[in-house]
Amino acid sequence: MTAPGRPAPRPAPVPAAALPAAAFRGRARVRFGDCDPAGIVFFPNWFTIAHGTVEDLFRERLRIDFHDLHGARGIGTGFVHAAATFMRPGLMGDEVAITPLVRRVGRASYALDVHLHRGEEELARLDLVTATTSLARRASVPVPDDLRAALLRYGAECGTVAGPETAP
Amino acid sequence: MTAPGRPAPRPAPVPAAALPAAAFRGRARVRFGDCDPAGIVFFPNWFTIAHGTVEDLFRERLRIDFHDLHGARGIGTGFVHAAATFMRPGLMGDEVAITPLVRRVGRASYALDVHLHRGEEELARLDLVTATTSLARRASVPVPDDLRAALLRYGAECGTVAGPETAP
Amino acid sequence: MTAPGRPAPRPAPVPAAALPAAAFRGRARVRFGDCDPAGIVFFPNWFTIAHGTVEDLFRERLRIDFHDLHGARGIGTGFVHAAATFMRPGLMGDEVAITPLVRRVGRASYALDVHLHRGEEELARLDLVTATTSLARRASVPVPDDLRAALLRYGAECGTVAGPETAP
Amino acid sequence: MTAPGRPAPRPAPVPAAALPAAAFRGRARVRFGDCDPAGIVFFPNWFTIAHGTVEDLFRERLRIDFHDLHGARGIGTGFVHAAATFMRPGLMGDEVAITPLVRRVGRASYALDVHLHRGEEELARLDLVTATTSLARRASVPVPDDLRAALLRYGAECGTVAGPETAP
Repeated sequence: MTAPGRPAPRPAPVPAAALPAAAFRGRARVRFGDCDPAGIVFFPNWFTIAHGTVEDLFRERLRIDFHDLHGARGIGTGFVHAAATFMRPGLMGDEVAITPLVRRVGRASYALDVHLHRGEEELARLDLVTATTSLARRASVPVPDDLRAALLRYGAECGTVAGPETAP
Repeated sequence: MTAPGRPAPRPAPVPAAALPAAAFRGRARVRFGDCDPAGIVFFPNWFTIAHGTVEDLFRERLRIDFHDLHGARGIGTGFVHAAATFMRPGLMGDEVAITPLVRRVGRASYALDVHLHRGEEELARLDLVTATTSLARRASVPVPDDLRAALLRYGAECGTVAGPETAP
Repeated sequence: MTAPGRPAPRPAPVPAAALPAAAFRGRARVRFGDCDPAGIVFFPNWFTIAHGTVEDLFRERLRIDFHDLHGARGIGTGFVHAAATFMRPGLMGDEVAITPLVRRVGRASYALDVHLHRGEEELARLDLVTATTSLARRASVPVPDDLRAALLRYGAECGTVAGPETAP
Repeated sequence: MTAPGRPAPRPAPVPAAALPAAAFRGRARVRFGDCDPAGIVFFPNWFTIAHGTVEDLFRERLRIDFHDLHGARGIGTGFVHAAATFMRPGLMGDEVAITPLVRRVGRASYALDVHLHRGEEELARLDLVTATTSLARRASVPVPDDLRAALLRYGAECGTVAGPETAP
């Protein structure tokens, strides 16, 4: 019923300067309302913050209109997996740099790593796997060609994806 | 910089009836405001929904006052890892059963699996690892004795934790 | 540019027992993640909590399927006004009773008062005005007949709406 | 039990250009996760977005450290009233300008108007009344002198507050 006991190895923090210079970077300020009674970011809000930067990546770097994708084109970008390793707590007022990197582009899904830093200190690392779907049929569809090309190009610019893959 | 390519194996859905009869079960209704323009639960909200049930588990089954723990006792329950596998989308109005199971109790952390079902259909599986901290010192502290005992007892009742562990 | 200085009169708290016995009542637990670093409910979350009960009112008492209304029927229930008077802070773990009352049913809008109580103590009073719209045309449409009838019936049962109105 | 029927007059939208040139302006992007199944901003999120700009106003213009105020100084800024008039729906991807203006500074509370615009079009107008409290005693305290002076100075720069007031 539950996963076998051996947990996945915990990623080690990397300094912001170690990320690819060509990577897209978003910025967000940790808000009062993002934080909980312990005074730190309530953990699901890190996913929300990161997703905002993924939207910016689409618009500003991939040149794919996220709104149009979900609207006129009827393509959903539903998550099939989302994981986070929290390294340091985020505090109210922190300015956070958010760096999304392409790890994999598959036939009908793609995987991003998102690094969140305060200065050089990594606060959290997210692993987001998205499957492309037909919103009308609620069924898996191949990653659209323009999105695939843009993800592969961005991944190549960052040196995080070697080239086109086909599986899974 | 990024994790090696081989992803963790994706857990297979289990029917609600296959979960331990002794497990604690929360209930939540998927709200309009939980859903996104694709009409499905915006993924970080699954973590928020699950955390509500973890709070109920503490109060109703473990008999540990979550508020008092963070208040008078000054113990934080910060997340060091949170992962979700999304199996089926949640839709507005869905009634969801939320079943938290104890997977591991360590020296200064514990791990829960949280299953979210609509009827017998598993929608999402969460893996939440919490570290106990001193809120004043923002430093790791051992899981308090009463919380450890309650988690182990609940885990034993569900058959998901064999007995006391010490590492890590 | 700004409203003239004289503020609207602040409503006085009423005990829960003073609300109509026939009124629909929702229940919610204040969650850790609803609260801010001051340890109290972050104010926008009161609106989210109240909206959950409005959805329940629709399903359980008005017998109008909120999902179907927005889905197959293409009717939006967009807010044109939302106001809250906060009387007492909500604390983590509080169990809150949420009582929505119909104040007005107009041609293309309706107004609800929502009372939030902890025991007999009123914590917040919300004033929510909704306009019915065509989601396809993003334009105002009359309140659908079944919804209008259900709101008036519920209002009459509670004694908060005298009868059919036509304006505005 | 409910407020008398006559609603407060609905404020008319003003173009962004009509706001004081000296006013502080925040910017936010409407996110996928801010929007509901109707494809528009879920209304409580407007309050959250506006509050982010109020935090920026404190830090960047009033030179009051919001974090320090709630932390070391033990002063809470709890809301006693929050109201919004929604004029036009916000859509995913919209870039929104957020303009907070001081309307009133009282003995133990202050009131802000917050205008939200997309280009010249006003989308929403918020009326936020905050009471200063002692977090330790959960009781009203006078607006701290430095905060009062900063609010009055900012209000005077914008021409929205004539001068010091004392009531209420």
